[in-house]
Amino acid sequence: MIKLYTFPPSTNSRKVRIALLEKGLEFQRINVDLSKREQKNPEYLKIHPFGQVPALDDEGFIIYDSTVINEYLEDVFPDVPLRPRNPVGAARMRYWNKFIDEHVMNHVSMHGWHRMIGIIARNIENGEFEKLMERIPLPDQRKKWKTARSGFSEADLTNATEKILYAVDKVEAQLAKTAWIAGDDYTLADINFYSHCGMMVERMFPELEIAKRCPRLVAWREKMTARPAVARALRGEDRTAPGLRTWTGHAR
Amino acid sequence: MIKLYTFPPSTNSRKVRIALLEKGLEFQRINVDLSKREQKNPEYLKIHPFGQVPALDDEGFIIYDSTVINEYLEDVFPDVPLRPRNPVGAARMRYWNKFIDEHVMNHVSMHGWHRMIGIIARNIENGEFEKLMERIPLPDQRKKWKTARSGFSEADLTNATEKILYAVDKVEAQLAKTAWIAGDDYTLADINFYSHCGMMVERMFPELEIAKRCPRLVAWREKMTARPAVARALRGEDRTAPGLRTWTGHAR
Repeated sequence: MIKLYTFPPSTNSRKVRIALLEKGLEFQRINVDLSKREQKNPEYLKIHPFGQVPALDDEGFIIYDSTVINEYLEDVFPDVPLRPRNPVGAARMRYWNKFIDEHVMNHVSMHGWHRMIGIIARNIENGEFEKLMERIPLPDQRKKWKTARSGFSEADLTNATEKILYAVDKVEAQLAKTAWIAGDDYTLADINFYSHCGMMVERMFPELEIAKRCPRLVAWREKMTARPAVARALRGEDRTAPGLRTWTGHAR
Repeated sequence: MIKLYTFPPSTNSRKVRIALLEKGLEFQRINVDLSKREQKNPEYLKIHPFGQVPALDDEGFIIYDSTVINEYLEDVFPDVPLRPRNPVGAARMRYWNKFIDEHVMNHVSMHGWHRMIGIIARNIENGEFEKLMERIPLPDQRKKWKTARSGFSEADLTNATEKILYAVDKVEAQLAKTAWIAGDDYTLADINFYSHCGMMVERMFPELEIAKRCPRLVAWREKMTARPAVARALRGEDRTAPGLRTWTGHAR
């Protein structure tokens, strides 16, 4: 059976859980608690050498990177398609996935790290923090933890917000033309944008007045949230820890 | 017939030309001269709304983004495969493509922009430069042109060089395990890394002593360069303009 190493509030984990549930696939869920830094444990590093979630174990083949995992699921389990079967449609989906991965995800993530990982990182004592840093394999991730601890700069946060505005406007314009983000089919691009931005952009950035600026995006989000697989994927998420509440914007 | 809008020295264009030639596909090549800023002409913006190369026109369907185009070519013309047919192999290839697109391409490109577009941008008169900026649809691209004109900061260039070192070491380690970057098959990941970094990293960054540091990468590069399709793709490139010589490191 497929094993998914996941941390429920992680946006990348969510992307894969939604895809698995949409396809009606059975899978074993193994929680890797990022707030306890379990992703840096030596046992987990044997599964994912960079210490990140999610990782998918399909009969011993380990796949990582959520976008890559979701295309893999399409290749192996095409029965419930989340990628258009015609090549032009697949290309449109991949174009959007790349846009979301390269120009959306990191910018929302920076605000999330600033609010959530910042709290976790500042609660770690000196000495222990340096030891944790030694266990993080990717230099970029080490840099991100250190920045989260000291706080991201206003300039970087403002730049990230501008990029998010650019993205929501782009999606809004697209939804004026097609029912879903990559065309008239529901695809992995919808799951990607929903998980990284669409589901929480209004809560995380009330000052952007998304409902007024992007009514189509809000209607699309409601349509997403109403999907049984999406609802099931979100149900397991723990939003009780203070850092997570800050991240997701949930009051409790 | 497939039409490819291309600018020979552009690394993204090169990626697609190599894939087309490897597959033995006939295509019409339409040069879009970036040094004359033809990619921002209104006629071209009708084809590619963001004013970038390459763009592929397959019987009226326009596809852009070089990684997306190359997967599209796989979907439509699978006879000469450049993507493994088994899903695990395809996932490995996509993992590397994402790594190259997100963590290699931009960093080499920054040095290229610093050396090449910087020269072009500084040769444009005030007033005319601002007019050009108005014609650039993507905010990120406008920012990049402005930075190229004033010069990238030492800190950013140093950071980019560190990322390039990380990437060449990662590829070197992989080539100790497999014949090609994504496994034992030649794939789009090899074409991607070659076009964006492998073919010119030694010439562009002599101070990194790549030959000493990464002998496997150098042997792999020679194997790539010897492929008839790669040689044909490179033959058409104009390296006579001073800016381009600076970019590619060619003496003439």
